[in-house]
Amino acid sequence: MKAVGVVVEYNPFHNGHLYHIQKAKELTQADIVAAVMSGPFLQRGEPALVSKWARAEMALESGVDLIVELPYAFATQHAAVFASGAVDILQSLSCDFLCFGSESGSIDAFQQTFTLLQGKGMEEDLLVKGFMKQGMSYPKAKSLAIKELTTSDDHTALNLSMPNNILGYEYYKAVHTNKYPMEICTVARMKADYHDKTFTSDTIASATSIREELLHDKGDIRKIKPFLPASSYQLLQQYKETYLTYHTWENYWHYLKFRLLQSTAEELAAIYEMEEGLEYRFLKYVKTASSFHDFIRLVKTKRYTWTRLQRICVHILTNTKKAEMSSSLKPNYIRLLGTTVNGRLYLKEKKKQFQLPIISKLSAFDKEKIALDIRASQIYALGVPNLVQHQLLEMDYTKPPIMK
Amino acid sequence: MKAVGVVVEYNPFHNGHLYHIQKAKELTQADIVAAVMSGPFLQRGEPALVSKWARAEMALESGVDLIVELPYAFATQHAAVFASGAVDILQSLSCDFLCFGSESGSIDAFQQTFTLLQGKGMEEDLLVKGFMKQGMSYPKAKSLAIKELTTSDDHTALNLSMPNNILGYEYYKAVHTNKYPMEICTVARMKADYHDKTFTSDTIASATSIREELLHDKGDIRKIKPFLPASSYQLLQQYKETYLTYHTWENYWHYLKFRLLQSTAEELAAIYEMEEGLEYRFLKYVKTASSFHDFIRLVKTKRYTWTRLQRICVHILTNTKKAEMSSSLKPNYIRLLGTTVNGRLYLKEKKKQFQLPIISKLSAFDKEKIALDIRASQIYALGVPNLVQHQLLEMDYTKPPIMK
Repeated sequence: MKAVGVVVEYNPFHNGHLYHIQKAKELTQADIVAAVMSGPFLQRGEPALVSKWARAEMALESGVDLIVELPYAFATQHAAVFASGAVDILQSLSCDFLCFGSESGSIDAFQQTFTLLQGKGMEEDLLVKGFMKQGMSYPKAKSLAIKELTTSDDHTALNLSMPNNILGYEYYKAVHTNKYPMEICTVARMKADYHDKTFTSDTIASATSIREELLHDKGDIRKIKPFLPASSYQLLQQYKETYLTYHTWENYWHYLKFRLLQSTAEELAAIYEMEEGLEYRFLKYVKTASSFHDFIRLVKTKRYTWTRLQRICVHILTNTKKAEMSSSLKPNYIRLLGTTVNGRLYLKEKKKQFQLPIISKLSAFDKEKIALDIRASQIYALGVPNLVQHQLLEMDYTKPPIMK
Repeated sequence: MKAVGVVVEYNPFHNGHLYHIQKAKELTQADIVAAVMSGPFLQRGEPALVSKWARAEMALESGVDLIVELPYAFATQHAAVFASGAVDILQSLSCDFLCFGSESGSIDAFQQTFTLLQGKGMEEDLLVKGFMKQGMSYPKAKSLAIKELTTSDDHTALNLSMPNNILGYEYYKAVHTNKYPMEICTVARMKADYHDKTFTSDTIASATSIREELLHDKGDIRKIKPFLPASSYQLLQQYKETYLTYHTWENYWHYLKFRLLQSTAEELAAIYEMEEGLEYRFLKYVKTASSFHDFIRLVKTKRYTWTRLQRICVHILTNTKKAEMSSSLKPNYIRLLGTTVNGRLYLKEKKKQFQLPIISKLSAFDKEKIALDIRASQIYALGVPNLVQHQLLEMDYTKPPIMK
């Protein structure tokens, strides 16, 4: 059996994702789709709208056959680390293909950019440092540096200021740098732009616009119905009925505030990605901020992207220290979230080739290794009211992988 | 001018406290009453019902002339440390008398017990250790040890299982051990027992029964009216109108739960009073407890009193570590909360004799020294809804002492 791997967040799973999976199978003729999906906290430094279990269920209902968790140590990182962890896991699952969605849609553009930048690592670093000295954020500096190193040549330029092109480029780079045998392809994202805030077609809308409708005070869940598979829509409805809320940063703002107010600058400086005295800005503005959004707005400077600051806040919530992160640079387990019949057939056939242990039951696994993921899940559970917290809090210990 | 000092919590200020102040003045013929009062968290390991500012206001309305804060480092400790800090502060305020309420009401009983135990420190320690080895809590072991060392003699026995006798004995001991020139007297507590849960007379009720009525779902604030001075009653009403709640442990339970879920056993072990592997019980039961009360019930063993466990929880909330506490064994400032006209006259006359700096404005004082009190106040402020938190959060920085 052949598998095509995808790297996803499914926040929530919508028709654009469905299109991506279908195209991936069509392009590669793979027998199954294997997805590696971020757990409770996402790359943008936000809690996922609904639990990883609910999102895994959506995926399995709509064409994914095998879904595993991208550990916290990669899911909450900038593009390069995120991509490297995800690609390592897909490789460990013996995927034959990797197919990602991009604004570009042309794998040649990724290949050309990668070739042009080969051996120019030092030049790139110097340019990035130079731009950052001018006060730019890291992602902006990096995209400008790459532009400078590649635009003089005659090629279909890859626009590396687009979020999915950036991630795609990092996947491409990770596969080639590691010389993984995976074949890579890309699908152009349909119609709605990544950052689109309004619905742009009859059945495709960005996850951002779907979330906005779901989370807005006057939002109406029925309005998003055309843009999601029926099963996703139903699971979203059920989640709110069960847990009384979707998870947003504002649900965790009081915890962040509490933790900041009880911390010393020294303790905060130990948190992952907290650098250059940023802890003093955090301690200064926590007292006056009226909401999480207001807090980030106050702390923000040109130097740090909104996303980076949100990620630091996630690390404060989960109490993730520099030392702990630096000891987790390579994935060392695969947490299985769910399978279809075909997914299970694939596992049976390929399991012996896998380079990493598969965790199906937590009780049977060394909990030390997975401590950070468990902690993140438990903190995530605190985003729902006390009355319904218990089930979500225990889920990571008690729930077996979903079987479809 | 002469001053009589009192050590108080006023949670809330009621007619029993009024009686105590009036008797203290009557017995000592002092010109003013100086009170040292616990800040946001109390000796029993609980948040005060209302802020220290509201409680100071109550006191100044009812006969106290000068009120200062007992720092967190003493207010949240077992009787001996609590008493020693309080007595040091009253001495620093040049008080001529110390008058405490007790179940006994006879200062001779305190004096006799003190004399009998003089030079028996080692015997006492041995007995206490012996009883604790049998599984008893420290307070129980201590009271039994003292009983054993004193009952064979012919004297009016002091019952040291009564909470106010215990505290009184520690005041007595602190004054005499330090050879402070203060004269000590005691007033018998009126009618309602300390632990009484029902009102026992027409105008006197215990603070416990008043709190129960205030905090009970079906409680009716009007029922407590006969037992409080009118000003206290009004201030309690106003507080609820302004901050929408009184402060109870349940208001902080989600913060405690969050902090426990994000902590390692090692981090918890650094918290003050966390001993003998208790951190593992905390981490075990936080996942299943349905409320703060339920949590303490689950963690509790014969070895630890309810009060002690609650105090540890306060230290977790305020992130108070062993190292920080051990560096605060002697008071090194006096935080002024308020004065009457007479209180100000006294300050003017005596200020030069004071051995500790008086803090009236935080901005003018070294904030390092008072960091723990500020932190405790800010964490305390998180017990009210987000909407009204800001004022309470800033109060310790902006509010000058109350002037009546």
